[in-house]
Amino acid sequence: MFETEFEVDWADCDPAGIVFYPHFFRFMDTALQRLLRARGLTQAVFRGEFGSIGTPLLEANARFRSPARPGDRLTIRVSKAEWRGRAFRLDYRASIAERLVFEGFETRICAAEVEGRLQAIAAPERLRAA
Amino acid sequence: MFETEFEVDWADCDPAGIVFYPHFFRFMDTALQRLLRARGLTQAVFRGEFGSIGTPLLEANARFRSPARPGDRLTIRVSKAEWRGRAFRLDYRASIAERLVFEGFETRICAAEVEGRLQAIAAPERLRAA
Amino acid sequence: MFETEFEVDWADCDPAGIVFYPHFFRFMDTALQRLLRARGLTQAVFRGEFGSIGTPLLEANARFRSPARPGDRLTIRVSKAEWRGRAFRLDYRASIAERLVFEGFETRICAAEVEGRLQAIAAPERLRAA
Amino acid sequence: MFETEFEVDWADCDPAGIVFYPHFFRFMDTALQRLLRARGLTQAVFRGEFGSIGTPLLEANARFRSPARPGDRLTIRVSKAEWRGRAFRLDYRASIAERLVFEGFETRICAAEVEGRLQAIAAPERLRAA
Repeated sequence: MFETEFEVDWADCDPAGIVFYPHFFRFMDTALQRLLRARGLTQAVFRGEFGSIGTPLLEANARFRSPARPGDRLTIRVSKAEWRGRAFRLDYRASIAERLVFEGFETRICAAEVEGRLQAIAAPERLRAA
Repeated sequence: MFETEFEVDWADCDPAGIVFYPHFFRFMDTALQRLLRARGLTQAVFRGEFGSIGTPLLEANARFRSPARPGDRLTIRVSKAEWRGRAFRLDYRASIAERLVFEGFETRICAAEVEGRLQAIAAPERLRAA
Repeated sequence: MFETEFEVDWADCDPAGIVFYPHFFRFMDTALQRLLRARGLTQAVFRGEFGSIGTPLLEANARFRSPARPGDRLTIRVSKAEWRGRAFRLDYRASIAERLVFEGFETRICAAEVEGRLQAIAAPERLRAA
Repeated sequence: MFETEFEVDWADCDPAGIVFYPHFFRFMDTALQRLLRARGLTQAVFRGEFGSIGTPLLEANARFRSPARPGDRLTIRVSKAEWRGRAFRLDYRASIAERLVFEGFETRICAAEVEGRLQAIAAPERLRAA
């Protein structure tokens, strides 16, 4: 569905010499941002056209299969996207060449800020299409 | 079982003005590090006594209930820890005063680096006790 | 002038086992945010009362004297603040017990967003007082 | 001398909607890591051949000229490298298309860990050549 690449940096790794795991979630988030921008859904469109502050999370999950180290080239595939009412779930698979590094998913909503509180809004047609 | 506090920083928040979700996983990791240090299990003990590079993840999960913003005081409780063979699972609950912010879990192993590869090792008694 | 404490986390350290240096700048930023909040200058005051998006940087500098590692308690002192027209400079000293870890400074402005561009605004009296 | 590109992510930006400045230092560090890897100086070479844990900082500086936002493509040039005894200084310029975003420098040493303490070592010939 969508594929993007990351070069693992020194900055991403911890004293064990491997990627500090919250960065894998950052990579998932960035993969989605790239997917959205590639389909024309920039922050300007979210704010201006959708009246949305973005797509906050309901849930995030990852199962870690093997470590990644500085200099590794990590490919992340957004393998599926599925709507459940106002929420949507994205599945991710990340690998270094043929080696699986992690599998994960995110469940998100499209949200607006109403009187200082976040609220799920009906997903814009352009977001569903993407 | 263990409780620790975080002050949400400007640095933790994204253009929506709320905590960027991978930082919640960083807070879970840090809560565990603080628990381990509070029980005398420093990095020096892991490396020297256990011959371990640390406790890498098999799985991590969080369900996000409400947002957190700069200046919020977030309390994280490690509410349960459970062994399953060489793996152990930790449950977390995070709240701002009475408001639930997220619930999550981590499944980890105690690992050593053997010829450049990570391997689960039998959990040291002191780690099980903690 | 103001003093605040950080516990160095596993999350802050790199494969050399020491704090990855950009995090020291994050600590300086957070020390300032804590100083401002301690004087009642929350984000709500910046946005509502000052019409400001915050205090972006003109320059940042640090000289690193000794490393910091997981579990270290780092004390940061904001040792001086000085106005130069619309800009202000803050001096920082960070130490672990008696050992100096780094010295740094930040030069900032108080900024508003005008037609999508950042502009320095005259510093509010309450910010100068703080 | 060396040029590399970054796509600014949502993850890099703060509640003002612009890059949180410590990430610019992370980008400088990553630009250097890419330069070193491009010349064959991987972490394996540092540890194995040089007996070095890496190149910790003596000083870092940046002057910020204009902001960067999610989706911007930032080009960083390592414009000069200069040795001063055991230390070396690197100059950086970062721009988005023709617009200057920041200029900075880093002063580093090549370090080894000796009895738990970092020490500057004589720079390996291959590092000087790079």
